[in-house]
Amino acid sequence: MFENLDHIGIAVKSIDAASKLYTLMGLSIESIEIVDSQFVKTAHIKINSTYVELLEPTSESSPVHKFIQKKGEGLHHLAFKVKDINKSVEILTKEGFSFTTEKPIKGANNKLAIFIHPKHTNYTLIELIS
Amino acid sequence: MFENLDHIGIAVKSIDAASKLYTLMGLSIESIEIVDSQFVKTAHIKINSTYVELLEPTSESSPVHKFIQKKGEGLHHLAFKVKDINKSVEILTKEGFSFTTEKPIKGANNKLAIFIHPKHTNYTLIELIS
Repeated sequence: MFENLDHIGIAVKSIDAASKLYTLMGLSIESIEIVDSQFVKTAHIKINSTYVELLEPTSESSPVHKFIQKKGEGLHHLAFKVKDINKSVEILTKEGFSFTTEKPIKGANNKLAIFIHPKHTNYTLIELIS
Repeated sequence: MFENLDHIGIAVKSIDAASKLYTLMGLSIESIEIVDSQFVKTAHIKINSTYVELLEPTSESSPVHKFIQKKGEGLHHLAFKVKDINKSVEILTKEGFSFTTEKPIKGANNKLAIFIHPKHTNYTLIELIS
């Protein structure tokens, strides 16, 4: 079950440039993290119970680099917090959903995460995280 | 100042089809509204302090229809709640930001809203709402 909107991922070329709007509007970057497995630098900007996550590619191998090349900078994914990620995968699989990896894998903040295949979600990239 | 993430707008061809994931995951549609000025039907799905707003075009004149034709279905915009929308516009204008309309206009739920020109926000469409 979706318990919270954990974060909204935004693909950007430069965290420095993209964060300006948020700092002008009174928000601040809470943490910056390199996620080696995804070749991205991430900046987390808290707003109430959720985060804006700016994603800056650190290499041309990054899926975020490929996204920017194909679609340009902009909204990349929504991540929903679930209590039991394996149970959620089971429920959705039964209903015909599939995923981009076979199992949840460790992402930012060492949390388990899995992406729903975007063909099921009108090409909105949706991540389950727990 | 950004006080809350009011909603995330997602452009969809069919609210019925797109809402399935959310209802499976325990969320529900709180309200459905036609916004005549934008030629869209909107469905609001609450999750904690924010909403997923599904946007289904009601006419080919809809900006959301044009978005889907150009980019396909998917994440469309982020809306941030601000206390004083005119003050926010003033602060951002001073910093070189511009907007897609001259002044805030009435949108869904009769709230005042204005979009930052996406050229300033790495093509993430951002709405201020109050």
